[in-house]
Amino acid sequence: MRVKVYQDILEANDNLAEMNRKKFKGHGILVVNLIGSPGCGKTMLLEKTLAALRERGKVRPAVVEGDLETSRDAERIARSGVPVVQINTQGGCHLDASMLAAVLPDLPLAEINLLFIENVGNLVCPASFDVGESYKVVVLSVTEGDDKPAKYPVVFHHSEVALVTKMDLIEHTDFSLEAALRDMRSVNPKLKCLPLSARTGQGMDAWVELLEEQVQGVSKG
Amino acid sequence: MRVKVYQDILEANDNLAEMNRKKFKGHGILVVNLIGSPGCGKTMLLEKTLAALRERGKVRPAVVEGDLETSRDAERIARSGVPVVQINTQGGCHLDASMLAAVLPDLPLAEINLLFIENVGNLVCPASFDVGESYKVVVLSVTEGDDKPAKYPVVFHHSEVALVTKMDLIEHTDFSLEAALRDMRSVNPKLKCLPLSARTGQGMDAWVELLEEQVQGVSKG
Repeated sequence: MRVKVYQDILEANDNLAEMNRKKFKGHGILVVNLIGSPGCGKTMLLEKTLAALRERGKVRPAVVEGDLETSRDAERIARSGVPVVQINTQGGCHLDASMLAAVLPDLPLAEINLLFIENVGNLVCPASFDVGESYKVVVLSVTEGDDKPAKYPVVFHHSEVALVTKMDLIEHTDFSLEAALRDMRSVNPKLKCLPLSARTGQGMDAWVELLEEQVQGVSKG
Repeated sequence: MRVKVYQDILEANDNLAEMNRKKFKGHGILVVNLIGSPGCGKTMLLEKTLAALRERGKVRPAVVEGDLETSRDAERIARSGVPVVQINTQGGCHLDASMLAAVLPDLPLAEINLLFIENVGNLVCPASFDVGESYKVVVLSVTEGDDKPAKYPVVFHHSEVALVTKMDLIEHTDFSLEAALRDMRSVNPKLKCLPLSARTGQGMDAWVELLEEQVQGVSKG
Protein backbone atom coordinates (compact mmCIF):
# COMPACT_ATOMS: atom_id res chain seq x y z
CA MET A 1 0.00 0.00 0.00
CA ARG A 2 2.69 2.42 1.04
CA VAL A 3 4.79 1.35 -1.95
CA LYS A 4 1.80 1.78 -4.26
CA VAL A 5 1.20 5.34 -3.06
CA TYR A 6 4.86 6.18 -3.53
CA GLN A 7 4.76 4.77 -7.08
CA ASP A 8 1.69 6.89 -7.88
CA ILE A 9 3.49 9.99 -6.64
CA LEU A 10 6.56 9.17 -8.74
CA GLU A 11 4.45 8.48 -11.84
CA ALA A 12 2.51 11.75 -11.53
CA ASN A 13 5.83 13.52 -11.05
CA ASP A 14 7.36 11.87 -14.12
CA ASN A 15 4.43 12.98 -16.29
CA LEU A 16 4.78 16.58 -15.16
CA ALA A 17 8.55 16.41 -15.63
CA GLU A 18 8.00 15.40 -19.25
CA MET A 19 5.79 18.45 -19.76
CA ASN A 20 8.50 20.69 -18.28
CA ARG A 21 11.09 19.00 -20.50
CA LYS A 22 9.04 19.66 -23.66
CA LYS A 23 8.72 23.32 -22.69
CA PHE A 24 12.48 23.62 -22.18
CA LYS A 25 13.13 21.87 -25.48
CA GLY A 26 10.77 24.24 -27.27
CA HIS A 27 12.81 27.16 -25.98
CA GLY A 28 16.18 25.47 -26.63
CA ILE A 29 17.17 25.59 -22.95
CA LEU A 30 19.72 23.29 -21.31
CA VAL A 31 18.54 22.49 -17.78
CA VAL A 32 21.06 21.38 -15.18
CA ASN A 33 19.77 19.94 -11.89
CA LEU A 34 22.46 20.43 -9.21
CA ILE A 35 22.24 17.90 -6.37
CA GLY A 36 24.44 17.65 -3.30
CA SER A 37 24.53 17.76 0.49
CA PRO A 38 23.93 20.93 2.46
CA GLY A 39 27.16 22.89 2.38
CA CYS A 40 28.86 20.97 -0.45
CA GLY A 41 29.37 24.31 -2.19
CA LYS A 42 26.52 24.45 -4.72
CA THR A 43 25.74 28.14 -4.28
CA MET A 44 29.32 29.38 -4.40
CA LEU A 45 29.90 27.15 -7.41
CA LEU A 46 26.91 28.80 -9.09
CA GLU A 47 28.11 32.31 -8.23
CA LYS A 48 31.53 31.64 -9.76
CA THR A 49 30.06 29.78 -12.74
CA LEU A 50 27.69 32.66 -13.52
CA ALA A 51 30.54 35.17 -13.28
CA ALA A 52 32.68 33.10 -15.68
CA LEU A 53 29.80 32.60 -18.13
CA ARG A 54 29.06 36.32 -18.14
CA GLU A 55 32.70 37.18 -18.86
CA ARG A 56 32.78 34.76 -21.79
CA GLY A 57 29.40 36.01 -23.06
CA LYS A 58 28.28 32.90 -24.95
CA VAL A 59 25.42 31.74 -22.71
CA ARG A 60 22.30 33.39 -21.21
CA PRO A 61 21.65 31.69 -17.85
CA ALA A 62 18.96 31.81 -15.17
CA VAL A 63 18.62 30.05 -11.82
CA VAL A 64 15.95 28.34 -9.72
CA GLU A 65 16.90 28.05 -6.05
CA GLY A 66 15.38 25.28 -3.92
CA ASP A 67 15.52 25.54 -0.14
CA LEU A 68 13.45 24.43 2.84
CA GLU A 69 13.35 28.00 4.12
CA THR A 70 14.85 31.46 3.56
CA SER A 71 15.68 33.22 0.31
CA ARG A 72 19.36 33.65 1.20
CA ASP A 73 20.64 31.72 -1.81
CA ALA A 74 18.39 33.55 -4.27
CA GLU A 75 19.62 36.86 -2.83
CA ARG A 76 23.23 35.75 -3.32
CA ILE A 77 22.52 34.69 -6.91
CA ALA A 78 20.55 37.88 -7.67
CA ARG A 79 23.77 39.86 -7.10
CA SER A 80 25.16 38.11 -10.20
CA GLY A 81 22.51 39.97 -12.21
CA VAL A 82 20.87 36.83 -13.64
CA PRO A 83 17.13 36.06 -13.37
CA VAL A 84 16.53 33.94 -10.27
CA VAL A 85 13.47 32.43 -8.59
CA GLN A 86 13.40 30.96 -5.09
CA ILE A 87 11.28 27.91 -4.25
CA ASN A 88 10.74 27.26 -0.51
CA THR A 89 9.66 23.67 0.08
CA GLN A 90 8.45 24.39 3.66
CA GLY A 91 10.34 21.41 5.01
CA GLY A 92 10.12 19.26 1.85
CA CYS A 93 13.33 17.36 1.21
CA HIS A 94 13.54 17.72 -2.60
CA LEU A 95 12.18 19.74 -5.52
CA ASP A 96 9.58 18.02 -7.69
CA ALA A 97 8.31 18.70 -11.20
CA SER A 98 5.15 20.49 -10.01
CA MET A 99 7.15 22.98 -7.93
CA LEU A 100 9.30 23.77 -10.96
CA ALA A 101 6.25 24.01 -13.27
CA ALA A 102 4.70 26.52 -10.86
CA VAL A 103 7.61 28.98 -11.12
CA LEU A 104 8.30 28.70 -14.87
CA PRO A 105 5.97 31.67 -15.64
CA ASP A 106 8.30 33.81 -13.48
CA LEU A 107 11.32 33.04 -15.68
CA PRO A 108 12.11 34.75 -19.02
CA LEU A 109 12.25 31.43 -20.91
CA ALA A 110 12.39 33.13 -24.32
CA GLU A 111 15.56 35.00 -23.33
CA ILE A 112 17.68 32.27 -21.73
CA ASN A 113 19.38 29.11 -22.96
CA LEU A 114 20.70 27.65 -19.69
CA LEU A 115 18.72 27.04 -16.51
CA PHE A 116 20.45 25.95 -13.32
CA ILE A 117 18.29 24.30 -10.69
CA GLU A 118 19.93 24.26 -7.27
CA ASN A 119 18.04 21.50 -5.52
CA VAL A 120 17.45 21.26 -1.75
CA GLY A 121 20.67 20.29 0.03
CA ASN A 122 20.28 16.53 0.22
CA LEU A 123 22.33 13.76 -1.39
CA VAL A 124 19.46 11.26 -1.23
CA CYS A 125 15.89 12.31 -2.08
CA PRO A 126 16.37 14.72 -5.03
CA ALA A 127 18.02 11.90 -6.99
CA SER A 128 14.67 10.11 -7.39
CA PHE A 129 12.64 13.11 -8.58
CA ASP A 130 12.93 14.09 -12.23
CA VAL A 131 11.97 17.76 -12.60
CA GLY A 132 12.37 17.87 -16.39
CA GLU A 133 16.10 18.60 -16.40
CA SER A 134 18.46 17.80 -19.29
CA TYR A 135 20.63 16.01 -16.77
CA LYS A 136 21.61 15.86 -13.13
CA VAL A 137 24.97 17.06 -11.82
CA VAL A 138 26.00 15.63 -8.46
CA VAL A 139 28.20 17.86 -6.31
CA LEU A 140 30.51 16.23 -3.73
CA SER A 141 32.98 18.24 -1.64
CA VAL A 142 36.28 16.72 -0.55
CA THR A 143 35.46 17.53 3.09
CA GLU A 144 32.59 15.02 2.93
CA GLY A 145 34.91 12.07 2.35
CA ASP A 146 35.75 9.78 -0.56
CA ASP A 147 33.42 7.02 0.65
CA LYS A 148 30.26 8.87 -0.41
CA PRO A 149 29.90 7.49 -4.00
CA ALA A 150 29.69 3.96 -2.57
CA LYS A 151 27.44 4.97 0.32
CA TYR A 152 25.05 7.16 -1.72
CA PRO A 153 25.11 5.38 -5.11
CA VAL A 154 21.64 6.41 -6.34
CA VAL A 155 22.51 10.01 -7.12
CA PHE A 156 25.80 9.02 -8.78
CA HIS A 157 23.95 6.45 -10.84
CA HIS A 158 21.42 9.05 -12.09
CA SER A 159 23.89 11.87 -12.82
CA GLU A 160 25.82 12.60 -16.01
CA VAL A 161 28.43 14.80 -14.35
CA ALA A 162 30.04 14.69 -10.90
CA LEU A 163 31.77 17.81 -9.62
CA VAL A 164 34.28 17.21 -6.82
CA THR A 165 34.35 20.61 -5.10
CA LYS A 166 36.53 22.35 -2.50
CA MET A 167 39.70 20.84 -4.03
CA ASP A 168 41.61 23.69 -2.32
CA LEU A 169 40.90 21.92 1.01
CA ILE A 170 41.97 18.42 -0.07
CA GLU A 171 45.35 18.62 1.69
CA HIS A 172 43.52 19.11 5.02
CA THR A 173 41.42 15.96 4.53
CA ASP A 174 41.94 12.22 3.94
CA PHE A 175 40.03 12.43 0.64
CA SER A 176 41.49 10.20 -2.09
CA LEU A 177 40.37 11.37 -5.53
CA GLU A 178 41.45 8.00 -6.90
CA ALA A 179 39.24 6.07 -4.45
CA ALA A 180 36.26 8.36 -5.12
CA LEU A 181 36.69 8.02 -8.90
CA ARG A 182 36.96 4.24 -8.68
CA ASP A 183 33.68 4.01 -6.74
CA MET A 184 31.94 6.51 -9.05
CA ARG A 185 32.97 4.49 -12.12
CA SER A 186 31.81 1.28 -10.50
CA VAL A 187 28.34 2.83 -9.89
CA ASN A 188 28.19 4.65 -13.23
CA PRO A 189 30.89 3.96 -15.86
CA LYS A 190 29.69 6.91 -18.02
CA LEU A 191 29.89 9.53 -15.27
CA LYS A 192 32.08 12.48 -16.23
CA CYS A 193 34.00 13.67 -13.17
CA LEU A 194 35.46 17.17 -12.82
CA PRO A 195 37.51 18.11 -9.72
CA LEU A 196 37.48 21.85 -9.05
CA SER A 197 37.63 24.66 -6.54
CA ALA A 198 35.17 27.51 -6.91
CA ARG A 199 37.27 29.49 -4.44
CA THR A 200 40.63 29.28 -6.26
CA GLY A 201 39.23 28.78 -9.77
CA GLN A 202 41.08 25.47 -10.22
CA GLY A 203 39.21 23.29 -12.74
CA MET A 204 36.48 25.87 -13.37
CA ASP A 205 37.41 26.33 -17.04
CA ALA A 206 36.68 22.69 -17.90
CA TRP A 207 33.26 22.93 -16.21
CA VAL A 208 32.32 26.20 -17.90
CA GLU A 209 33.48 24.94 -21.30
CA LEU A 210 31.44 21.78 -20.85
CA LEU A 211 28.33 23.89 -20.15
CA GLU A 212 28.92 26.10 -23.20
CA GLU A 213 29.37 23.05 -25.42
CA GLN A 214 26.18 21.45 -24.13
CA VAL A 215 24.15 24.66 -24.45
CA GLN A 216 25.28 24.91 -28.07
CA GLY A 217 24.24 21.29 -28.63
CA VAL A 218 20.75 21.90 -27.22
CA SER A 219 20.06 25.13 -29.12
CA LYS A 220 21.22 23.47 -32.37
CA GLY A 221 19.09 20.38 -31.71
CA MET B 1 -4.83 12.63 0.13
CA ARG B 2 -1.08 12.65 -0.08
CA VAL B 3 -0.90 14.59 3.19
CA LYS B 4 -3.28 12.14 4.86
CA VAL B 5 -1.13 9.17 3.83
CA TYR B 6 1.99 10.91 5.14
CA GLN B 7 0.24 11.58 8.46
CA ASP B 8 -0.74 7.92 8.74
CA ILE B 9 2.87 6.88 8.16
CA LEU B 10 4.11 9.34 10.80
CA GLU B 11 1.48 8.18 13.30
CA ALA B 12 2.32 4.49 12.84
CA ASN B 13 5.99 5.41 13.23
CA ASP B 14 5.36 7.38 16.42
CA ASN B 15 3.52 4.45 18.00
CA LEU B 16 6.40 2.09 17.24
CA ALA B 17 8.90 4.67 18.49
CA GLU B 18 7.07 4.77 21.84
CA MET B 19 7.41 0.97 22.09
CA ASN B 20 11.15 1.23 21.40
CA ARG B 21 11.41 4.02 23.99
CA LYS B 22 9.71 1.91 26.68
CA LYS B 23 12.11 -0.93 25.96
CA PHE B 24 15.12 1.38 26.28
CA LYS B 25 13.73 2.85 29.50
CA GLY B 26 13.23 -0.64 30.94
CA HIS B 27 16.92 -1.35 30.35
CA GLY B 28 18.08 2.09 31.56
CA ILE B 29 19.63 2.95 28.19
CA LEU B 30 20.28 6.49 26.96
CA VAL B 31 19.65 6.59 23.20
CA VAL B 32 21.27 9.32 21.11
CA ASN B 33 20.08 9.80 17.51
CA LEU B 34 22.90 11.45 15.52
CA ILE B 35 21.66 13.42 12.51
CA GLY B 36 23.71 15.32 9.96
CA SER B 37 24.64 15.61 6.29
CA PRO B 38 26.74 13.02 4.51
CA GLY B 39 30.34 13.70 5.44
CA CYS B 40 29.70 16.02 8.39
CA GLY B 41 31.89 13.74 10.47
CA LYS B 42 29.42 11.53 12.34
CA THR B 43 31.40 8.30 12.03
CA MET B 44 34.78 9.76 13.02
CA LEU B 45 33.07 11.55 15.90
CA LEU B 46 31.67 8.19 17.03
CA GLU B 47 35.04 6.45 16.73
CA LYS B 48 36.73 9.09 18.89
CA THR B 49 33.80 9.26 21.33
CA LEU B 50 33.86 5.47 21.81
CA ALA B 51 37.62 5.53 22.40
CA ALA B 52 37.28 8.29 25.02
CA LEU B 53 34.36 6.53 26.74
CA ARG B 54 36.31 3.27 26.91
CA GLU B 55 39.32 5.00 28.45
CA ARG B 56 37.15 6.60 31.13
CA GLY B 57 35.31 3.33 31.76
CA LYS B 58 32.02 4.72 33.10
CA VAL B 59 29.67 3.87 30.21
CA ARG B 60 28.86 0.72 28.23
CA PRO B 61 27.99 1.82 24.68
CA ALA B 62 26.69 0.16 21.50
CA VAL B 63 26.00 1.53 18.02
CA VAL B 64 23.38 1.21 15.27
CA GLU B 65 24.65 2.38 11.87
CA GLY B 66 22.15 3.59 9.26
CA ASP B 67 23.22 3.81 5.62
CA LEU B 68 21.62 3.49 2.19
CA GLU B 69 24.19 0.88 1.21
CA THR B 70 27.45 -0.74 2.35
CA SER B 71 28.53 -1.77 5.84
CA ARG B 72 31.63 0.42 5.79
CA ASP B 73 30.63 2.46 8.84
CA ALA B 74 29.73 -0.59 10.90
CA GLU B 75 33.10 -2.11 10.01
CA ARG B 76 34.86 1.07 11.19
CA ILE B 77 32.89 1.07 14.45
CA ALA B 78 33.44 -2.67 15.02
CA ARG B 79 37.17 -1.94 15.31
CA SER B 80 36.35 0.02 18.50
CA GLY B 81 35.28 -3.28 20.04
CA VAL B 82 31.71 -2.17 20.83
CA PRO B 83 28.59 -4.04 19.70
CA VAL B 84 27.39 -2.63 16.37
CA VAL B 85 24.54 -3.39 13.97
CA GLN B 86 24.26 -2.04 10.42
CA ILE B 87 20.89 -1.11 8.91
CA ASN B 88 20.84 -0.69 5.12
CA THR B 89 17.82 1.31 4.02
CA GLN B 90 18.21 0.27 0.33
CA GLY B 91 17.85 3.87 -0.81
CA GLY B 92 15.59 5.07 2.02
CA CYS B 93 16.50 8.56 3.20
CA HIS B 94 16.09 8.09 6.97
CA LEU B 95 15.84 5.45 9.69
CA ASP B 96 12.38 4.84 11.11
CA ALA B 97 11.16 3.19 14.30
CA SER B 98 10.34 -0.14 12.62
CA MET B 99 13.87 -0.49 11.22
CA LEU B 100 15.30 0.08 14.68
CA ALA B 101 12.79 -2.30 16.31
CA ALA B 102 13.85 -5.01 13.84
CA VAL B 103 17.52 -4.93 14.90
CA LEU B 104 17.03 -4.57 18.67
CA PRO B 105 17.16 -8.38 19.17
CA ASP B 106 20.71 -8.26 17.74
CA LEU B 107 21.91 -5.87 20.46
CA PRO B 108 22.90 -6.90 24.02
CA LEU B 109 20.41 -4.48 25.62
CA ALA B 110 20.91 -5.93 29.11
CA GLU B 111 24.62 -5.16 28.99
CA ILE B 112 24.68 -1.58 27.65
CA ASN B 113 23.54 1.82 28.96
CA LEU B 114 24.22 4.04 25.93
CA LEU B 115 23.07 3.44 22.36
CA PHE B 116 24.27 5.67 19.54
CA ILE B 117 22.17 5.68 16.38
CA GLU B 118 24.03 7.09 13.42
CA ASN B 119 21.22 8.04 11.07
CA VAL B 120 21.42 8.14 7.27
CA GLY B 121 23.47 11.15 6.14
CA ASN B 122 20.71 13.69 5.55
CA LEU B 123 20.01 16.97 7.33
CA VAL B 124 16.32 16.94 6.37
CA CYS B 125 14.27 13.72 6.53
CA PRO B 126 15.62 12.00 9.69
CA ALA B 127 14.51 15.03 11.73
CA SER B 128 10.84 14.10 11.26
CA PHE B 129 11.12 10.43 12.23
CA ASP B 130 11.22 9.59 15.93
CA VAL B 131 12.88 6.19 16.38
CA GLY B 132 12.44 6.07 20.16
CA GLU B 133 15.61 7.99 21.02
CA SER B 134 16.16 9.91 24.27
CA TYR B 135 17.06 12.90 22.14
CA LYS B 136 18.43 13.97 18.79
CA VAL B 137 21.91 15.40 18.32
CA VAL B 138 22.42 17.44 15.15
CA VAL B 139 25.92 17.42 13.69
CA LEU B 140 27.04 20.36 11.56
CA SER B 141 30.58 20.69 10.21
CA VAL B 142 32.18 24.10 9.73
CA THR B 143 32.90 23.25 6.07
CA GLU B 144 29.13 23.19 5.41
CA GLY B 145 28.71 26.89 6.23
CA ASP B 146 27.18 28.91 9.05
CA ASP B 147 23.92 29.51 7.15
CA LYS B 148 22.67 25.94 7.67
CA PRO B 149 20.75 26.44 10.96
CA ALA B 150 18.54 29.06 9.25
CA LYS B 151 18.21 27.05 6.04
CA TYR B 152 17.52 23.66 7.69
CA PRO B 153 15.66 24.75 10.86
CA VAL B 154 13.59 21.57 11.41
CA VAL B 155 16.44 19.41 12.65
CA PHE B 156 17.80 22.19 14.89
CA HIS B 157 14.33 22.69 16.30
CA HIS B 158 13.97 18.99 17.19
CA SER B 159 17.46 18.47 18.65
CA GLU B 160 18.68 18.95 22.21
CA VAL B 161 22.35 19.18 21.33
CA ALA B 162 24.17 20.62 18.30
CA LEU B 163 27.74 19.55 17.68
CA VAL B 164 29.74 21.89 15.44
CA THR B 165 32.40 19.55 14.06
CA LYS B 166 35.68 19.92 12.13
CA MET B 167 36.62 23.01 14.17
CA ASP B 168 40.25 22.32 13.14
CA LEU B 169 39.27 23.43 9.60
CA ILE B 170 37.48 26.66 10.61
CA GLU B 171 40.40 28.89 9.62
CA HIS B 172 40.14 27.59 6.03
CA THR B 173 36.44 28.49 5.81
CA ASP B 174 34.20 31.56 6.18
CA PHE B 175 32.27 29.87 9.01
CA SER B 176 31.27 32.27 11.80
CA LEU B 177 30.50 30.37 15.02
CA GLU B 178 28.76 33.49 16.30
CA ALA B 179 26.41 33.65 13.29
CA ALA B 180 25.65 29.92 13.49
CA LEU B 181 24.93 30.15 17.25
CA ARG B 182 22.66 33.17 16.78
CA ASP B 183 20.57 31.31 14.17
CA MET B 184 20.48 28.11 16.25
CA ARG B 185 19.23 30.03 19.30
CA SER B 186 16.61 31.77 17.22
CA VAL B 187 15.29 28.38 16.00
CA ASN B 188 15.68 26.65 19.38
CA PRO B 189 16.60 28.73 22.46
CA LYS B 190 17.23 25.57 24.55
CA LEU B 191 19.70 23.98 22.11
CA LYS B 192 23.04 23.17 23.76
CA CYS B 193 25.85 23.82 21.29
CA LEU B 194 29.30 22.21 21.53
CA PRO B 195 32.03 23.13 19.03
CA LEU B 196 34.64 20.38 18.68
CA SER B 197 37.14 18.60 16.49
CA ALA B 198 37.19 14.80 16.56
CA ARG B 199 40.54 14.93 14.76
CA THR B 200 42.43 17.17 17.23
CA GLY B 201 40.34 16.33 20.31
CA GLN B 202 39.37 19.99 20.87
CA GLY B 203 36.05 20.16 22.76
CA MET B 204 35.68 16.38 23.00
CA ASP B 205 35.86 16.35 26.82
CA ALA B 206 32.75 18.49 27.20
CA TRP B 207 30.81 16.18 24.84
CA VAL B 208 31.96 12.97 26.55
CA GLU B 209 31.23 14.40 30.01
CA LEU B 210 27.75 15.43 28.88
CA LEU B 211 27.09 11.87 27.71
CA GLU B 212 28.34 10.35 30.98
CA GLU B 213 26.16 12.74 32.98
CA GLN B 214 23.09 11.90 30.94
CA VAL B 215 23.70 8.14 31.07
CA GLN B 216 23.91 8.42 34.86
CA GLY B 217 20.63 10.37 34.89
CA VAL B 218 18.84 7.72 32.82
CA SER B 219 20.08 4.72 34.79
CA LYS B 220 19.11 6.44 38.08
CA GLY B 221 15.67 7.38 36.73
